[in-house]
Order: sequence, then C-alpha cells, then structure tokens
Amino acid sequence: MSESCHGLRLDPTVREDARRRLLSVRGHVEGILRMLENEQVYCVEVLKQIKAVDGALNKIGALILRSHLRSHVVTAHERGDEDRVVDELMEILKYR
Amino acid sequence: MSESCHGLRLDPTVREDARRRLLSVRGHVEGILRMLENEQVYCVEVLKQIKAVDGALNKIGALILRSHLRSHVVTAHERGDEDRVVDELMEILKYR
Amino acid sequence: MSESCHGLRLDPTVREDARRRLLSVRGHVEGILRMLENEQVYCVEVLKQIKAVDGALNKIGALILRSHLRSHVVTAHERGDEDRVVDELMEILKYR
Amino acid sequence: MSESCHGLRLDPTVREDARRRLLSVRGHVEGILRMLENEQVYCVEVLKQIKAVDGALNKIGALILRSHLRSHVVTAHERGDEDRVVDELMEILKYR
Repeated sequence: MSESCHGLRLDPTVREDARRRLLSVRGHVEGILRMLENEQVYCVEVLKQIKAVDGALNKIGALILRSHLRSHVVTAHERGDEDRVVDELMEILKYR
Repeated sequence: MSESCHGLRLDPTVREDARRRLLSVRGHVEGILRMLENEQVYCVEVLKQIKAVDGALNKIGALILRSHLRSHVVTAHERGDEDRVVDELMEILKYR
Repeated sequence: MSESCHGLRLDPTVREDARRRLLSVRGHVEGILRMLENEQVYCVEVLKQIKAVDGALNKIGALILRSHLRSHVVTAHERGDEDRVVDELMEILKYR
Repeated sequence: MSESCHGLRLDPTVREDARRRLLSVRGHVEGILRMLENEQVYCVEVLKQIKAVDGALNKIGALILRSHLRSHVVTAHERGDEDRVVDELMEILKYR
C-alpha cells in the first residue's frame, strides 16, 4: 500500500526528520494516555495536550508537503502525471 | 500539572472512551513509523496517514470538549469561575 | 430566522464591533472582486487576499463566540437550556 | 500589487467562476450586516452565517488553488521558478 508503483519516494533526509519527530509524537501520545489514567484529570489539560500533538503532526505534515512539492509536484508536467498529482494534493489539503 | 486544584474532573466514561481511542491513535502512529522505515515510501501515502491520525485526534478532542461544556462550562456562573473557564476555552479553540 | 424566541441576544457592544469589522470585510471582498476583473491577476495574489478575509471573519467569529460563552453558555444550567446550548456550540465548532 | 511581473495569470474561466461566487459572498456578508442591525439577534445565528461565508470563501480558494496547481505549479521546474512557487504555496497553506 505504501509502496509507490510510480517510483516517487519521500526524500531520505525528510523521511528521517519525520521519523524522529513522529517518535516524539508517540511519546506525547503516551503521556496523554497516562494522564487519562488519572481520575482527577481536568478536561482542559487533556485538550491542551491533544492540541499540542495536533500541532506537532501538522508540522510533520508541512515538512513532507514541502518536500513533495519540491521533489514531485513542480516536475509533474515533465513526467506527465500532473492529473494524478493535482488530484492527490487537493484531496490531502481538503479540510486542513 | 494535570491535577485539577479546582476539583473539576473529566467524566469517567468519556475518559475511558478517550483512552481507548488514543490507544488506537498510538497504534496508528506506530504504523506510520513503520512506513517511514521503508525507503520506497511515497510522500502522499504518509500525508494521508497523518491526516487520518489528525482526524482521530480531533474526534477525541470533540468528545472531551462536549463533556467539558456539559459538565463544567454551563455551570460556571453558578460556581463563579466563568472568567477562567471562558479564557481557557477561547485559548483551546484558537486555530482549530 | 435570526429572531431569538428564547430571548438570548448578542451583546450590543459586541454587535456594533462585529458590524464595523464586517463592513471592513465587505470592503475587502469588493477589493478582491476588482482584482478578479484584471486579466493579469495572479492566482497567489487572490489566494492571499481570500486568506486575509478568512482571518478577519474568524476574528469576528471569535469575538461573538467569547461573548456568547460569557453571556449565555456559562449560565445555561441556571436557565435549563444546556442541551440546546451545547448542541449548538458543537455544531458551530465543527471543522473550525 | 496584483499585477504579475512573471506573466503567470489566473485562468479566465476560473477567474469568472471565482468572481461570480464572490459576488454571492458579498451578498451573504450584506445579509449578516442586516442581521447585526437587529437588536434581538442571537449570537449563534450570526456564528452560523459567518461559518457559511467561511465555507463559501474556502470553496473559492480551493478552485483557485486547483487551477494554480494545474497551470503553474506542475510546470514550475520547467520555468525554473520552483523556489518561489513552493515558498508561496507553503505560505498560503499555513494554518488552513
């Protein structure tokens, strides 16, 4: 599923940066899971943490998006796959 | 930090529901971490998965927000802490 | 449609502030309409202006939301209309 | 300001579609201005209308964005202006 049949690949440096950041997101999610075991926890504290994780995920998304634009979107016309590339992008940008 | 000095607590049923959903979010994040170990992975596949995790997090946030509104916000004037409660909410809703 | 049968009203000061800001939004929209009559206009210039209008609208929304929270939501339990008030809020906050 | 020195222009059909839709947005804004003259108006009614205008603006933004991607972004490498094109896009997509 995550294998590209078209040979377009996420840039290795960005991939490693995203992986490191996502490890930190996982740690953050685990922190919220511990919060949720506490019977005293206050709604707003959890909402703040969820918002922070959301911000970290969006940052990762922005890094990958920029890399995708630079590596694959600006060259789509040369490759001839611009229809697919544009449709994919519009789908991903919906409701962001 | 996540202990409430004011005695307002996240409803236990919602807390448990949020915890279950967040376990699933953690699993999803681990799935993306595995994707990112694949040198062939395509940017758009990762972006789709990040968007899905984002959606799941927002759903958890919405459940907790609704519970907070019902349990704590609509009664804030009776308790006399409406200033704090409104400021907290506006802070959390910013840029959502 | 915009008459409240329940007697809850937007605070007059906020209403006037919102009206003034919305007049400025209308002016901004008219500016974009003029841009769009220019055959030379560049996509990104229009997108920037749309984003600016969006920001101004969100600011107006935030002012009204804060006023609504302070005037009506924190007192909903006392009035006994918390079900309606919470449902309305959740509906409005969806996809923001 | 809205003249492009680089010769990239919004597609005429999309420009006309955006103009028509924006005329409708202006009418909607004027409707909200009339609502705000009513002393009885309820916060939530105004918030709903603001949200509707926001949705209409986002739709216009999406149409222009798709056209920009198709007409200018996928060909940026061929023109050699990919740095500028990517930076502009990332700026516009921030916080959407």
